[in-house]
Amino acid sequence: MNVLISEVGPRDGLQNISAIMPTEAKKAWIDAAFLAGVSEIEVGSFVPPRLLPQLADTAEIVSYARRIKGLTVAALVPNRMGAENAIKAGAHKITLPLSCSESHSKANLRRTHAEVLEEARQIAALISDLPEKERPHFEGSLSTAFGCTLEGHVPEEKVVELGIALMEAGCDEVGLADTTGYANPASVRRLIEKVWAAVGEDALTGIHLHNTRGLGLANAYAAFETGLRTFDSSLGGLGGCPFAPGASGNLVTEDLVYMFEAMGVSTGIDLEKLFGVRTLVQDALKDDDFYGFTPEAGLPLNFTPAKVSGVTSRTIGANS
Amino acid sequence: MNVLISEVGPRDGLQNISAIMPTEAKKAWIDAAFLAGVSEIEVGSFVPPRLLPQLADTAEIVSYARRIKGLTVAALVPNRMGAENAIKAGAHKITLPLSCSESHSKANLRRTHAEVLEEARQIAALISDLPEKERPHFEGSLSTAFGCTLEGHVPEEKVVELGIALMEAGCDEVGLADTTGYANPASVRRLIEKVWAAVGEDALTGIHLHNTRGLGLANAYAAFETGLRTFDSSLGGLGGCPFAPGASGNLVTEDLVYMFEAMGVSTGIDLEKLFGVRTLVQDALKDDDFYGFTPEAGLPLNFTPAKVSGVTSRTIGANS
Repeated sequence: MNVLISEVGPRDGLQNISAIMPTEAKKAWIDAAFLAGVSEIEVGSFVPPRLLPQLADTAEIVSYARRIKGLTVAALVPNRMGAENAIKAGAHKITLPLSCSESHSKANLRRTHAEVLEEARQIAALISDLPEKERPHFEGSLSTAFGCTLEGHVPEEKVVELGIALMEAGCDEVGLADTTGYANPASVRRLIEKVWAAVGEDALTGIHLHNTRGLGLANAYAAFETGLRTFDSSLGGLGGCPFAPGASGNLVTEDLVYMFEAMGVSTGIDLEKLFGVRTLVQDALKDDDFYGFTPEAGLPLNFTPAKVSGVTSRTIGANS
Repeated sequence: MNVLISEVGPRDGLQNISAIMPTEAKKAWIDAAFLAGVSEIEVGSFVPPRLLPQLADTAEIVSYARRIKGLTVAALVPNRMGAENAIKAGAHKITLPLSCSESHSKANLRRTHAEVLEEARQIAALISDLPEKERPHFEGSLSTAFGCTLEGHVPEEKVVELGIALMEAGCDEVGLADTTGYANPASVRRLIEKVWAAVGEDALTGIHLHNTRGLGLANAYAAFETGLRTFDSSLGGLGGCPFAPGASGNLVTEDLVYMFEAMGVSTGIDLEKLFGVRTLVQDALKDDDFYGFTPEAGLPLNFTPAKVSGVTSRTIGANS
């Protein structure tokens, strides 16, 4: 059994710290993560540089990462304009966030639900105009799906309704995002099942969890048990959401990978190499908010990771 | 649906920090925890004071806590001598740890498995000589059940075999303890089911988890899903095991209670009051290793705890 760990640190992590990581350091991070076995990385966000100067080099990073054979390059886009730039740069996967809490949507994207859905339709049209092999995978991310720091409770029916609306607007898939760290194992299970019932199991395969209240891995396990197989996480738990106060703390990639590998579920990622990536990025950022339990405690004595069939030793060649 | 949270901070927490908490501060902790809704507290350990001077006042604390009507007073005992003293002080529940790793057993209790089982038999005999209403509940705790920092892998068959042996020696129940933080959700589920198959579901109802690698709550959720209903945890995650290097970090009571309450599973504990207990104990300890996510992030906006039927407002009266 396998899961896909989608590393979002270069986007969700870096956008939430004040330091601006040099472009070369980002490239080194992406290389090292890929060599450690990471197969999907959200490398940046196509937002105006004046809003997030930390991600101003996203187009360059996407083009760079695109050259690594075997890596899925994902990027966030806030609107049609962002999607155009992401496609131009060559992103394999683009994610448009739609905040289920309309207050949060206005504060975060400065758009109503109707306006975001209109962007989704325009992006879908843009994609369908492309030759088939150039089309990126288009995901609509249902953010604040488990609650909102501005509105509190977000009705599950609203999440389901917006999931349907995103699919009707032309998304290939929707994702659930616990932007604010309000999810718990029971709500994770319930919401996955409700969204599945509305859009089908193929249209929801991944989840983006935060660890704000320490429940991140419990929620990931609940999502896995329910049947999801793609999990976002951030190296060292870097990042959060700057527009949702108190919502800091992504799921720690190192701990998430450790949990699955210990359970016998393969991530394709080598933990010792991943700890090396952590050191590399920590050195590059210096003043950061890295955390994580497994890197500090170390692996258990004689730890055996999940058995992987067909693992290949990775290289980043000039022609790849 | 309900769970029982057994607070082990006054024992497992305090034995692992160098500071010695004054007896009056321990009493204030126990009072405050009870008033917050905690129904079971492991208040100390009947070990020689020269080994653990932090717990030298355990007999006095047990006698004190025994006066609080509605509180189950638990204590750890390393041997028959400790059990005698625990019974004399009036403990409702005594727990004898048996380390499934024999290397750890020798290092921790300085006894082989056979020797610990002989102590268990003597304790059971001691208890059966008491009038029925004076008999404490006798639990054998299968420590290092999920792995050991000295031996690494601990065979699940060995844990099952020792569980059977403890029940045959006269324990009322066995418990699973992840002393070293080696457990994962899959091994938690598997081991519970194996031990249940061997001794019956009534003979294993609780689990003691650590958060060494961040998996504590995921493991607790897995144990809950499998069917366990009693969970040990420590206020602020205080403590660990001094004889298992690198095994620091109990499950944080505040985060565990938050997880269950958010899921709609009642713990009987009031979270705001519990945060007050945290502040009280932190102030008393000053230089401590408190952690926990929920107390730092705060409760979600408009958070609704689980509905409890028949909750009573608690008091600690002179006659209780």
